[in-house]
Amino acid sequence: MGLELYLDLLSQPCRAVYIFAKKNRIPFELRTVDLREGQHLSDAFAQVNPLQKVPVLKDGDFVLTESVAILLYLARKYKVPDHWYPQDPQACARVDEYLAWQHTALRRNCLRALWHKVMLPVFLGELVSPETLAATLAELDMALQVLEGKFLQDKAFLTGPHISLADLVAITELMHPVGAGCQVFKGRPKLAAWRQRVEAAVGEALFQEAHEVILKAKDSQPADPTLKQKMLPKVLAMIQ
Amino acid sequence: MGLELYLDLLSQPCRAVYIFAKKNRIPFELRTVDLREGQHLSDAFAQVNPLQKVPVLKDGDFVLTESVAILLYLARKYKVPDHWYPQDPQACARVDEYLAWQHTALRRNCLRALWHKVMLPVFLGELVSPETLAATLAELDMALQVLEGKFLQDKAFLTGPHISLADLVAITELMHPVGAGCQVFKGRPKLAAWRQRVEAAVGEALFQEAHEVILKAKDSQPADPTLKQKMLPKVLAMIQ
Ligand SMILES: N[C@@H](CCC(=O)N[C@@H](CS)C(=O)NCC(=O)O)C(=O)O
Ligand SMILES: N[C@@H](CCC(=O)N[C@@H](CS)C(=O)NCC(=O)O)C(=O)O
Repeated sequence: MGLELYLDLLSQPCRAVYIFAKKNRIPFELRTVDLREGQHLSDAFAQVNPLQKVPVLKDGDFVLTESVAILLYLARKYKVPDHWYPQDPQACARVDEYLAWQHTALRRNCLRALWHKVMLPVFLGELVSPETLAATLAELDMALQVLEGKFLQDKAFLTGPHISLADLVAITELMHPVGAGCQVFKGRPKLAAWRQRVEAAVGEALFQEAHEVILKAKDSQPADPTLKQKMLPKVLAMIQ
Repeated sequence: MGLELYLDLLSQPCRAVYIFAKKNRIPFELRTVDLREGQHLSDAFAQVNPLQKVPVLKDGDFVLTESVAILLYLARKYKVPDHWYPQDPQACARVDEYLAWQHTALRRNCLRALWHKVMLPVFLGELVSPETLAATLAELDMALQVLEGKFLQDKAFLTGPHISLADLVAITELMHPVGAGCQVFKGRPKLAAWRQRVEAAVGEALFQEAHEVILKAKDSQPADPTLKQKMLPKVLAMIQ
């Protein structure tokens, strides 16, 4: 059995893994795990990942979770172009720094923005107070300032003159609030220009394809009550 | 100027960096940033790290934040023994997987356990409700189950037969709730035996030295009111 990737393109780390594999022509079998159908809660998927989360990579007997680990594994195994994860120690450290920072910063804020603004009310039928939503968006704003001020600065990409894993992880993250209808790039010309460069480097068609699902998140059908009951506590744990 | 490390051993990622550098005889100048004195909020430190957090590495003109990135940079630059961050792609991916997982799991829970149980009431004079503390400890318990069930399993160390960066990041994390008086290893013989192996691999004396500060966290003096006012919002953001 070759490489298998368990993904749902609704999920931002899944989009990063998907784009990276496609862009680098890494052959894989796509195993779709539809989160809105609750497929990640099935017994079959628990056999693959007992933590019931996507993305998951399976390479023969080797099962790997965590998008950052998956991206690094693919970069090393398939010897992708150096700019994605440079050999140069300082350039590489800049990518590592971004990948470590985002977990508790941009990741958290983009996830919460999507769920508070769209997925909780539309998909799970849970009202979110205007105060909570405002606090979430204010936090997102602070993370965007750090993204621009500490990471992007006046460079073409987040960690240097070429696209790296950091840019891919960041852009797929930002498309979460974009999917929720937030004007993430408005009034941020530097970030907006960076987004264009990232899209061009990835390729427009692939970028569009990977983001089709999230850009339609607002049209999610309400979950049925049984599924809602199963999902709600897990969602609340995920976005806390 | 040689390598400089800005650390406070009260902080768990700082302890991981400190132990790693010492254990591997990497020469560095220690720049202590006393968090309880608010030294991370000084103008001088903001010049080093505008995000006002430790640890920070300075290697000549190169400034690097994020403990995980710092550990990887040191491992590569100083060509430490392979077991810390193996060349083998799958073994390496296991370390990456742990390092990615912990940010939003064990990290969050250990930090909250220390602050809710000790630092907020003792150092900042802020009461934490018994319900909040109970919820925090219940979450920590769930993360410990994953640490044991998914990562440690029946191996000697978290990612294989030898100590790696994953073990170091995990143990320094767990000593946070230990410092807060939580019985983290009670009723968990596998984790307790693993702790002994990690301590032995690091060296008892170094392990003790690195953990002296956190094991006395309960004796922290209350912050003065001006400092408290400056720190509280940042602490609440950090432990959310
Ligand atoms: N840190 C993990 C996060 C994985 C994760 O939280 N995946 C979400 C989708 S974005 C998921 O599967 N959630 C289902 C759940 O938590 O119930 C990674 O980067 O891979
Ligand atoms: N993800 C960062 C976390 C750094 C961090 O939060 N450091 C804490 C000490 S553990 C700090 O400096 N806090 C001061 C503050 O947030 O005001 C890392 O692993 O280095």
